[in-house]
Amino acid sequence: MQLFYQNLLPEINYLDQDESKHCIKVLRKQQGDELDIIDGKGTFYKAKITDASAKKCRFEIISTTQERKVAFHRHLAIAPTKNMDKMEWLVEKATEMGIDEISFFQSFHSERKVIKIERLEKKAISAMKQSLKAKKPLLNEIIPYKQFLKETDVSNKLIAYVDFKNKIHMKNELSHQQDTLVLIGPEGDFTPEEVSLAIENRYKKVSLGNSRLRTETAALAAVHLMNLAME
Amino acid sequence: MQLFYQNLLPEINYLDQDESKHCIKVLRKQQGDELDIIDGKGTFYKAKITDASAKKCRFEIISTTQERKVAFHRHLAIAPTKNMDKMEWLVEKATEMGIDEISFFQSFHSERKVIKIERLEKKAISAMKQSLKAKKPLLNEIIPYKQFLKETDVSNKLIAYVDFKNKIHMKNELSHQQDTLVLIGPEGDFTPEEVSLAIENRYKKVSLGNSRLRTETAALAAVHLMNLAME
Repeated sequence: MQLFYQNLLPEINYLDQDESKHCIKVLRKQQGDELDIIDGKGTFYKAKITDASAKKCRFEIISTTQERKVAFHRHLAIAPTKNMDKMEWLVEKATEMGIDEISFFQSFHSERKVIKIERLEKKAISAMKQSLKAKKPLLNEIIPYKQFLKETDVSNKLIAYVDFKNKIHMKNELSHQQDTLVLIGPEGDFTPEEVSLAIENRYKKVSLGNSRLRTETAALAAVHLMNLAME
Repeated sequence: MQLFYQNLLPEINYLDQDESKHCIKVLRKQQGDELDIIDGKGTFYKAKITDASAKKCRFEIISTTQERKVAFHRHLAIAPTKNMDKMEWLVEKATEMGIDEISFFQSFHSERKVIKIERLEKKAISAMKQSLKAKKPLLNEIIPYKQFLKETDVSNKLIAYVDFKNKIHMKNELSHQQDTLVLIGPEGDFTPEEVSLAIENRYKKVSLGNSRLRTETAALAAVHLMNLAME
């Protein structure tokens, strides 16, 4: 199934230029043909083409369906890797598995202080379409670690950090159906001060298991665990 | 920590040409310096350089440590994706998370009938070193699906296939500590005949959850589940 994306639905009833071109020039859709469109906010639209313009393909909505709501909000916050490809990969895979929000923060050992959120948005949109979802994760601009801790609060806050005195697996901290936020550190890991600061802010330290995972793999494992908790 | 690889340990007490060059030319190690070497079969070696040759760096073994043994054999069998990059990515990530064996098979909807096992071997070795493991997964050459089913047998055999009449999540079929093999289908999925053939061969149908995952993502999710069952 081919999905089109228009985030301004239901107010705007046409596809943007890229989507129109793909729809009319590449897929050769014509007036009267049906389209499946998503708004990235959780709604699938069945629509019919009223003007098969390759610049502004207009349609009328026939029906709508809501995507199955998830039980709790899954939020991943990560110190981006130096290699941006890995973050694009992560956004793609996390969207595919299911995630509601991804935030980026600068920490002491971060090798990357800026991110191109537009590129990540494109990856998220493409992954959402490919995996037939109607909801796009919210992607937040990078901010300093301290600011992130201060500004973000949910009931279940976790920090992935292996502490040999306290090895609680993340899977055991997801049993309750509650909004969850998990922090994943940079390639050089969190500093002890950063961990203490999280603890002061009511974060629980959790482990992702016995394997030594790279930043982006750890993040995907955490996303998978949040999804498993809902199955 | 820098790990070197010599799969012929303990019989052979030198690094191959690539590893020797990296050790002596790049890292500028000298006679008497200590090395950490893995054999890909589960043993870590502490060694001391006896001849700092950039072509054949010789060493003597000081001590050995065995990697923590996993409770059961984790085997992933997959119909490779058309895009070989995705398989390289999968081998890398699966090695990082932990996998004992990866097999490839040709199925009806397979778009790829051949694989370059040498490239995948390199990815596995590099991921093993990076994640400080001593055991490399066994990678098997691609064979036809029917042949694979016939030749491979373990106590817990699973096939990832979403059947709406029978939605058993894979996580619920991993509770016993037993050797597990999971089959992941191609981009066009298994045919009903291929699923029936697996059932005849005592495979159980399992789901990986509500999200529609691409082949390589489904495979990684399955690998993660096998690892979670051991935590």
